Amino acid sequence: MAGYPELVEGLIEQLNKFPGIGRRSAERIVYYILRSPTSELKKLVNAIIKAKEGIRLCSICNGFSAGEVCSICNDNKRDKGTICVVEEPKDVNAVERAGGYTGHYHVLLGSIAPLEGRGPENLKVNELIQRIKQNGVKEIIIATDSDTEGEATALYLARQIKPLGINISRIGIGLPMGSNLEYADSTTIARALSSRKQI
Amino acid sequence: MAGYPELVEGLIEQLNKFPGIGRRSAERIVYYILRSPTSELKKLVNAIIKAKEGIRLCSICNGFSAGEVCSICNDNKRDKGTICVVEEPKDVNAVERAGGYTGHYHVLLGSIAPLEGRGPENLKVNELIQRIKQNGVKEIIIATDSDTEGEATALYLARQIKPLGINISRIGIGLPMGSNLEYADSTTIARALSSRKQI
Repeated sequence: MAGYPELVEGLIEQLNKFPGIGRRSAERIVYYILRSPTSELKKLVNAIIKAKEGIRLCSICNGFSAGEVCSICNDNKRDKGTICVVEEPKDVNAVERAGGYTGHYHVLLGSIAPLEGRGPENLKVNELIQRIKQNGVKEIIIATDSDTEGEATALYLARQIKPLGINISRIGIGLPMGSNLEYADSTTIARALSSRKQI
Repeated sequence: MAGYPELVEGLIEQLNKFPGIGRRSAERIVYYILRSPTSELKKLVNAIIKAKEGIRLCSICNGFSAGEVCSICNDNKRDKGTICVVEEPKDVNAVERAGGYTGHYHVLLGSIAPLEGRGPENLKVNELIQRIKQNGVKEIIIATDSDTEGEATALYLARQIKPLGINISRIGIGLPMGSNLEYADSTTIARALSSRKQI
């Protein structure tokens, strides 16, 4: 078998490391890269280098930030008394996109996953407790994923934060908007039933 | 809405241009990039630059090549009398991976797609005719995709090449190996029936 030239193989190998990119996808991207004009690729390479050099995690909330403190933590118009706790920096953007939330965030940088060897000590939990104690936080909204790891993390956080005597809530779990009951899995339906609200 | 810092947005935009990479995938890759050590990213950037600088299309078959002529076209042990015609450089690798083929290749660099404005004049068809006329080619195997564009291209090539009086064949179209008849679509079954072989 002849295979690809070594330089093509090398690039496929690098792209293959990206999350969600298998070997076939990597091959298609390589093909795109080889066909693109050099000016396009310069833009790509520059974007990678600039983002890596210019972006860090906010020293307060651990979200993406261009400076020491991110634009949300720096925004005095936002409600400092409410913190929405999420797993990853990109989750901040998901909540912002939904609109309507005007509080602050705390990114845990992961979730509790014992099978993968990630315990609470690997997350930014202590930093969250410190923020609650020091800054007069009144409400914590736990918006971790609704998968096993996210649920376990929510439970753990609830136990840690309850003794501090502040409001703590979990985002609603149930039928997604616009979906059919018959297609929903039974765990979702069970959770939707138990989290029913009087109308 | 706060959105991502500008540098993150810029990188998402670049990655979003990759084939098969939507906005969500791009966000996940950005997150991976920002978390990777700088040494990893240097490898990635180097692989992109080196591949772009070092890889061109073979001047004979248009496949990926590290030099003027690719390793397959340069291989004297391969049968110069047979040419397998494919759409894209990556298709060469797909056939090589299958093993057993020892002839040469010709990459068309696309397929006929009138709706997207791609006619035969945009493909390396004339170059193929030249190769057939000059080099004593005895057999052409058309291995374009089995989608509408690939079939149209195969038909067009057959018409162009037949007058030259050489053997011309289309790769077998039918049930993929290991699949169930009941799950195959009717076009595939119809083609499998019409391309039946006596056993």
